[in-house]
Amino acid sequence: MPSALQQQIRRTLTRHELCPPGSRVLVGLSGGSDSVGLLLLLRDASAHGGFQLAGAAHFNHGARATSERDEDFCRDLTSRLDVPFLRDGADVRRVAETERTSFEDGARRLRYAFLHRAAQDLGADRVAVGHTRDDQAETFLLKLARGAGATGLGAVYPRRGEVIRPLLDVSREDVRSWLRERGQAWVEDETNADLCNPRNRIRHRVLPELDGAYGGPTRAQLARAAELAREDGQWLDAQAAARLDVLGRKRPDCLEFDAAALLVEPAPLRRRLLLQAMRSMADGREIGLEHVESAAEVLRGERRGADVPGSRWELRPPKLVLYRQGRSPA
Amino acid sequence: MPSALQQQIRRTLTRHELCPPGSRVLVGLSGGSDSVGLLLLLRDASAHGGFQLAGAAHFNHGARATSERDEDFCRDLTSRLDVPFLRDGADVRRVAETERTSFEDGARRLRYAFLHRAAQDLGADRVAVGHTRDDQAETFLLKLARGAGATGLGAVYPRRGEVIRPLLDVSREDVRSWLRERGQAWVEDETNADLCNPRNRIRHRVLPELDGAYGGPTRAQLARAAELAREDGQWLDAQAAARLDVLGRKRPDCLEFDAAALLVEPAPLRRRLLLQAMRSMADGREIGLEHVESAAEVLRGERRGADVPGSRWELRPPKLVLYRQGRSPA
Repeated sequence: MPSALQQQIRRTLTRHELCPPGSRVLVGLSGGSDSVGLLLLLRDASAHGGFQLAGAAHFNHGARATSERDEDFCRDLTSRLDVPFLRDGADVRRVAETERTSFEDGARRLRYAFLHRAAQDLGADRVAVGHTRDDQAETFLLKLARGAGATGLGAVYPRRGEVIRPLLDVSREDVRSWLRERGQAWVEDETNADLCNPRNRIRHRVLPELDGAYGGPTRAQLARAAELAREDGQWLDAQAAARLDVLGRKRPDCLEFDAAALLVEPAPLRRRLLLQAMRSMADGREIGLEHVESAAEVLRGERRGADVPGSRWELRPPKLVLYRQGRSPA
Repeated sequence: MPSALQQQIRRTLTRHELCPPGSRVLVGLSGGSDSVGLLLLLRDASAHGGFQLAGAAHFNHGARATSERDEDFCRDLTSRLDVPFLRDGADVRRVAETERTSFEDGARRLRYAFLHRAAQDLGADRVAVGHTRDDQAETFLLKLARGAGATGLGAVYPRRGEVIRPLLDVSREDVRSWLRERGQAWVEDETNADLCNPRNRIRHRVLPELDGAYGGPTRAQLARAAELAREDGQWLDAQAAARLDVLGRKRPDCLEFDAAALLVEPAPLRRRLLLQAMRSMADGREIGLEHVESAAEVLRGERRGADVPGSRWELRPPKLVLYRQGRSPA
């Protein structure tokens, strides 16, 4: 008889079609409770769901005194479970310094690149990572604090490309209880206690205060709000993309809009449409809400033009024009 | 030369058409900094915007030792400004106990009812209240903690019916600085320090922790996110209402849907459509996300039926039917 947790995982897998029959899944394994739970839960679910566990992959960040201990733990666990094991590592701190990025961002990039290679090596078409509902709630609050962005609040996706997140509907504590009941150990990541890290402050300081204000746990509500915002945002993005196709006329050096038509477009679609237009010329540079607001000011005639990353808006009545950088005739 | 704050208020008034020329505005005046600022700012803007300040109205909650002081302050201020003044009062605590509601909810209901009467007495067609961007951010976090609800996260509206909120784009601190510069006093509401009140805990405990995690002030981002969520939600609600008209067939005792048609409806619209259908039979009772989820379970055939406030869902293939309470043939 599967436990409540196992049943919930199966529902999540089915609902989002995370591991269709015949798929091969690699598990990203840090050794923490989330990923250890993920490995065991997917191993259970694989027989039932007709998919295969291709292996587990551990990335050694070389950052902590306990890095070697964590790697050994993962090797031992997978050996005991008879699951193929791959590992790689890097001095993330040095890479991050060279790339002038944060440790967390550098670690994420290197880890996902390794997981992608490991999946290819093991013939896996899915990479499962251990984000739980708690991560969802924490990410949502972090995004709120940083500014929502024109495409809404976003959220962690249950599936994005080859990456799947089967634990997204369950809490960290539920996974830990389940592991404890089975007598399965995990390693604790001491950096989770470091309050210099924004996510840890959200976890250890902001969320407990929010629970106190509400008078009970709030993570489930936050995670659900994140999920609904994502669902709304995805659909609105698709609607806006369709409107962009209709309203934007592509010229060699610019994108032209009929200004009057844009002005009568519903605000949620106009906002996303302007964002998508700029993104198409940004060469990967970040486009944010402030750029959408600049574009709207030009559209309303409150300013003649506005430079944004990779392009420039100009009002040339009756047209609103987005010129590729350096191609404005002005 | 108007100050930056005065200019921002004029922009907000124009952008949301809060006080069109010829309108008559009543100001809800508690005596706190927000409403005192609101009164003075609207008085300034009225000449420029071609609308009239019809008066100010103070509701005495009878709750604090300082209630009489607050009322006297408001009477004196309006007398000095030569603005018509109305007051009313109630023992809110007793009313709330009788109605089995919280002090805050009871106070809000009584206060808005009085403001509505006062507007009629003074021939006003607008009631201005002093909510700032900080209130917007606080309300947003409170709603998140309580559960987003199917219609999204909502937010405080710049205008809803006769009620307008001209300070929604400015911060509480900006209003206070402006009052200090003019040498204008206000009264402090000591209950704002009461940490038993969820809103005050959000203000004094959660938001400072969130600022700490982010490394800077977050209220403006939160308020903006609330505004965008409201904009998205309003448009999606309207789209869903249109789909409900198309997809729902009204019968004397029920509302019938083609189940297959609902299943292919985009999730953001389906969710809102199901909610609106239930609301139409709920006689004002609260319909929440949990009821939408029950409806979706019936639609997917995971259960035969589900009771919700005022009605009951049943799957009668190929139909999904919402029966008015007690009218199900089963």
